[in-house]
Amino acid sequence: MIRVSVVGATGYAGIELVRLLYSHPKVELVHLVSQSFAEQPISDIYPNFKGLLDKACSQLDIDKIAKESDVVFTSLPHGISNQVIPALYERGKKVIDLSGDFRYKSAEVYEKWYGIRHMSPDMLQASVYGLPELHRDEIKTARLIGNPGCYPTCAILGLAPLVKQGLIDLNSIIIDAKSGATGAGREPSQALHFCEVDENIKAYKVATHRHTSEIEQELSILAQREVALSFTPHLLPVKRGILSTIYANLKKSLTFGDVYSLYSEFYAGEPFITLHQEGSLPEIKHVNGSNNCHIGFVVDRRTNRIIVVAAIDNLIKGAGGQAVQNMNILFDLDETTGLRNPGWYL
Amino acid sequence: MIRVSVVGATGYAGIELVRLLYSHPKVELVHLVSQSFAEQPISDIYPNFKGLLDKACSQLDIDKIAKESDVVFTSLPHGISNQVIPALYERGKKVIDLSGDFRYKSAEVYEKWYGIRHMSPDMLQASVYGLPELHRDEIKTARLIGNPGCYPTCAILGLAPLVKQGLIDLNSIIIDAKSGATGAGREPSQALHFCEVDENIKAYKVATHRHTSEIEQELSILAQREVALSFTPHLLPVKRGILSTIYANLKKSLTFGDVYSLYSEFYAGEPFITLHQEGSLPEIKHVNGSNNCHIGFVVDRRTNRIIVVAAIDNLIKGAGGQAVQNMNILFDLDETTGLRNPGWYL
Amino acid sequence: MIRVSVVGATGYAGIELVRLLYSHPKVELVHLVSQSFAEQPISDIYPNFKGLLDKACSQLDIDKIAKESDVVFTSLPHGISNQVIPALYERGKKVIDLSGDFRYKSAEVYEKWYGIRHMSPDMLQASVYGLPELHRDEIKTARLIGNPGCYPTCAILGLAPLVKQGLIDLNSIIIDAKSGATGAGREPSQALHFCEVDENIKAYKVATHRHTSEIEQELSILAQREVALSFTPHLLPVKRGILSTIYANLKKSLTFGDVYSLYSEFYAGEPFITLHQEGSLPEIKHVNGSNNCHIGFVVDRRTNRIIVVAAIDNLIKGAGGQAVQNMNILFDLDETTGLRNPGWYL
Amino acid sequence: MIRVSVVGATGYAGIELVRLLYSHPKVELVHLVSQSFAEQPISDIYPNFKGLLDKACSQLDIDKIAKESDVVFTSLPHGISNQVIPALYERGKKVIDLSGDFRYKSAEVYEKWYGIRHMSPDMLQASVYGLPELHRDEIKTARLIGNPGCYPTCAILGLAPLVKQGLIDLNSIIIDAKSGATGAGREPSQALHFCEVDENIKAYKVATHRHTSEIEQELSILAQREVALSFTPHLLPVKRGILSTIYANLKKSLTFGDVYSLYSEFYAGEPFITLHQEGSLPEIKHVNGSNNCHIGFVVDRRTNRIIVVAAIDNLIKGAGGQAVQNMNILFDLDETTGLRNPGWYL
Repeated sequence: MIRVSVVGATGYAGIELVRLLYSHPKVELVHLVSQSFAEQPISDIYPNFKGLLDKACSQLDIDKIAKESDVVFTSLPHGISNQVIPALYERGKKVIDLSGDFRYKSAEVYEKWYGIRHMSPDMLQASVYGLPELHRDEIKTARLIGNPGCYPTCAILGLAPLVKQGLIDLNSIIIDAKSGATGAGREPSQALHFCEVDENIKAYKVATHRHTSEIEQELSILAQREVALSFTPHLLPVKRGILSTIYANLKKSLTFGDVYSLYSEFYAGEPFITLHQEGSLPEIKHVNGSNNCHIGFVVDRRTNRIIVVAAIDNLIKGAGGQAVQNMNILFDLDETTGLRNPGWYL
Repeated sequence: MIRVSVVGATGYAGIELVRLLYSHPKVELVHLVSQSFAEQPISDIYPNFKGLLDKACSQLDIDKIAKESDVVFTSLPHGISNQVIPALYERGKKVIDLSGDFRYKSAEVYEKWYGIRHMSPDMLQASVYGLPELHRDEIKTARLIGNPGCYPTCAILGLAPLVKQGLIDLNSIIIDAKSGATGAGREPSQALHFCEVDENIKAYKVATHRHTSEIEQELSILAQREVALSFTPHLLPVKRGILSTIYANLKKSLTFGDVYSLYSEFYAGEPFITLHQEGSLPEIKHVNGSNNCHIGFVVDRRTNRIIVVAAIDNLIKGAGGQAVQNMNILFDLDETTGLRNPGWYL
Repeated sequence: MIRVSVVGATGYAGIELVRLLYSHPKVELVHLVSQSFAEQPISDIYPNFKGLLDKACSQLDIDKIAKESDVVFTSLPHGISNQVIPALYERGKKVIDLSGDFRYKSAEVYEKWYGIRHMSPDMLQASVYGLPELHRDEIKTARLIGNPGCYPTCAILGLAPLVKQGLIDLNSIIIDAKSGATGAGREPSQALHFCEVDENIKAYKVATHRHTSEIEQELSILAQREVALSFTPHLLPVKRGILSTIYANLKKSLTFGDVYSLYSEFYAGEPFITLHQEGSLPEIKHVNGSNNCHIGFVVDRRTNRIIVVAAIDNLIKGAGGQAVQNMNILFDLDETTGLRNPGWYL
Repeated sequence: MIRVSVVGATGYAGIELVRLLYSHPKVELVHLVSQSFAEQPISDIYPNFKGLLDKACSQLDIDKIAKESDVVFTSLPHGISNQVIPALYERGKKVIDLSGDFRYKSAEVYEKWYGIRHMSPDMLQASVYGLPELHRDEIKTARLIGNPGCYPTCAILGLAPLVKQGLIDLNSIIIDAKSGATGAGREPSQALHFCEVDENIKAYKVATHRHTSEIEQELSILAQREVALSFTPHLLPVKRGILSTIYANLKKSLTFGDVYSLYSEFYAGEPFITLHQEGSLPEIKHVNGSNNCHIGFVVDRRTNRIIVVAAIDNLIKGAGGQAVQNMNILFDLDETTGLRNPGWYL
């Protein structure tokens, strides 16, 4: 059994990770760290665990955690992860970080978009961007994983084959993304009050959302040149799920079949990527509850544009599920262990 | 024109009242008091008013308000209303209070259920319980109205004819009520986070909710003896609306027709009461957006029980709309002025 | 009083129109035509009207309607409107049609996008596209109004000033629109089952939705050249509201202030257009329940792109409210009569 | 591996059962029968299965199914199950029926409440009511299981200990139940249109719902006398989950501790029953996604009444999950196999 601890277990991303780990056949949950709820049973905070996982949350004790765990997941606000991870890393632990702190190649880019100083810029070299579909080999031997953001996971997977093959105008990329409210985290605020979100939709952080830089980093690597794009997140009155509607101008005329073949080949053997046939498009209810990413497309000859629609569960493929997928790779397990279930649909 | 000020204009009950007053043909809005948002245009807080009502909110200035207003609505947390109203009342203003502070005949009952001391127990004699269907004549000449709670409005209107006529066992009354989340107010909290309310329903304050005492007070007056009943509120994943499903044992065998006649007679001429014919029952979408109370019933011969279903919009007939109705009575306007619209349904 | 009849009164667009007309101070509702519910009181179908409007629905009787009405609103499926309107028009009635049948200059365009033959192509010359902000003068003297589609209203209003002034690359326009489910109409279907829509979002009719052609027609007129654009509708788990997120490449560098001035001037005096200041963007809860269109924008210097966000209530400014606005113009009333209320927000 | 077929695989209860069986470690899915979608891959109907379970649905072929399956789940409308099950039963198959057809001891009761003739009244003796917490021993040796209704599962589990111990007045039982819309099935109808259910709640089939008789049957067995009770179902604007708020008069004074002990003892060792401590009550988000039933209570001394709150996921413990639990018992597996996961909460 892999001994696993979770630091930041009671946020929405944290508890979803705990839920997935609880059902993972090779995992033993050792420490659930939560400063806010230390000493309280996790099942008092999340009563869905009552009678199943009544373990008490604990304070952060780096030495104890390091000693008793094989891998530590950190699900803390950015800037805070930074303060915990080096200590764990030094003690030789494998760390999978769900914050934005270790996703970047460049501390400058991080600092520009996050507006804070990076505390461990030297560790960015050691860290690997944990998107298995693009970086599986690097992940295998990594000890520090920057688990991708939810929006970036969806957008990058939706665009990678086109960008890699140079089939679209890189200046024309527009990502219009819609996310469930769990993406905003558990902390109460006026904007997340039920009566503000229900029966509403809004765009937010237009042209300034941090995830823009993460998407651009990965697409630039694929394109082998700088990519600048428009990314607009929207808040949906649903709990889970991201749907990204992605627009780009085609550099030459392509049929649906051409594009389908390209994606099929690019993602051949990928256990969590599903392509939709012509006439069918992903919806968030197809993926919610699963680690799957669904991708579909429409080639619009009238405007010579491709519209890609990609969907993930922001809490699973966009956070905890992908983190578990990374753990499976790190520990040489079948990558789908604990993650084989279909979405819920209902 | 009636010069109107609202103290506590930016809570959910307050802003709904402002919305209703804005469309009222005989009202001039003078002061919108909000300590939290003083000096800010109301339309910055609630952008639905942009271009229509851009008036700035103001600090509480009792003298100014008293001088420049004919009537003041107070929509403040209980215990706080108490501190503002006597000052306004002394200055000769008419006051319609949306808190629980002036709904009671007895300071003891208030203090028992609210767990705080009543600051102006002597004013309870002057105040009138503002449910026009039961107390219209007293309202006409009152200067201080305790505007009824949302749950009590719905439950009392649903039960009044049966209780008044002595047709049910008064020990058997059970009110199972379901409310939209605006009823809990605007203040953010964990329990009101979108992701906690959405796709959920929960019972809360079972057997201890304050509104129990308000319902009991009014039914006791009608019955001319003490009534003790069970009241269970539930939080629904909707913004607006209360549906009360009310159970009581019949003291003698009655048909639907008997009950329908009883209610028709009791509520004859009431502009905001609508009865459903046999086979039809109220739903919150029938009343949301309106000041109407819909009532329907099923007589169950098998158990010799009557099930009454009553529905209101908690923010209108359960708060601001009823307050406007009371104002109309106080100023001798047609009682439906500004309140004639049907529910939205969609 | 204007004597008004509604043909197709029990669909969602029809009943919302009836609701608005019910509260209109200059309107007398004469006939509510509904083949499906003929002889039944409208308040049996929509119990929100119980006790307020219990008028029975009637069969379609062109002669009677024409004789007893000053204006007729038709809210029928496209292709069907076509069969009723010429008969009304011939009898000298003013007609405001909510279907797509009389929105087009060119029968060819209609036939291409709607896939059916237009039955009265010659009447397209007489009809006026009923978007008052662009065609007020023509509307004044028209007798047949093609009331705009919901998506087009939102998109055209969001783009008109930029297109008119030639400030954007006309080949770069992308409209990513999100709509509430009332837009799909009242007819039950698998895709509109509560359990299919709730907690979901999906794109549909990507690159093929009929409203594309309507938007292109109006923008082409403004631009004085052919415009071809991408339009992607999405179905939201809400009842009402459209949010359009619109992307276009700027032809020259502009500041927020430049754009705000442009829009302010273009829409000067428009009673139903509201602009958001820098840092604020429209949300559907700002407009739902009102005839208002809110518009905001972000100028993204990094990509030299403008992102416009526009919001309307699809059932009001996107259908019945705009139809009433057109009626007000036709009958020389103040254009805001019966339409002055702010959105509901809650 | 147990060879399993599902007849009626594409309804909401059917597909949820398929989802659970797909993840069951001892199950091989053999036939998915769906008359409506025969020959189509199940993943075309429910795209959440794309790439995971692309098996085609098949026509009903009793011989083939009987030959190739060890157990057959039937998820058909009542009255139809009746026509399939005897044929399967005769061929020696174990059958778990999710309809109401084999839940009754008495064909008369069934016929009275369902309003149709029972086609195989003689088989009611062979069938066992599949509520393991009450009938585990009978289930073990049964070949035909009448899998309980969703509302009855929740209500019976909530009341059983009190009724068995004779602690409540059996004439005083009131069950006010609230259910998600999946309980109404997949068939589109006006009443299940998104815009009719969203932002609404309604009571339906008040005093006449069929599940009343099922609850009364089981409570009467426990009480060893006839029980007649009030049961009111409500439709919630959520997909999943049932919350039952249950009222009964206590025959003698009890404390919370007394009741908690009673339930703890009654349900000792039950893997799917979870009790809430004083001050905590079940919510549907605690159980949705799991086979768990949560139960909490409030003893109200003021009215000498107990209020029990019980929650289940209507599609799991109220349908497919309980069916799998029954299968586990029938095949002598650990009863929790494939059902160990906690609820989703988010």
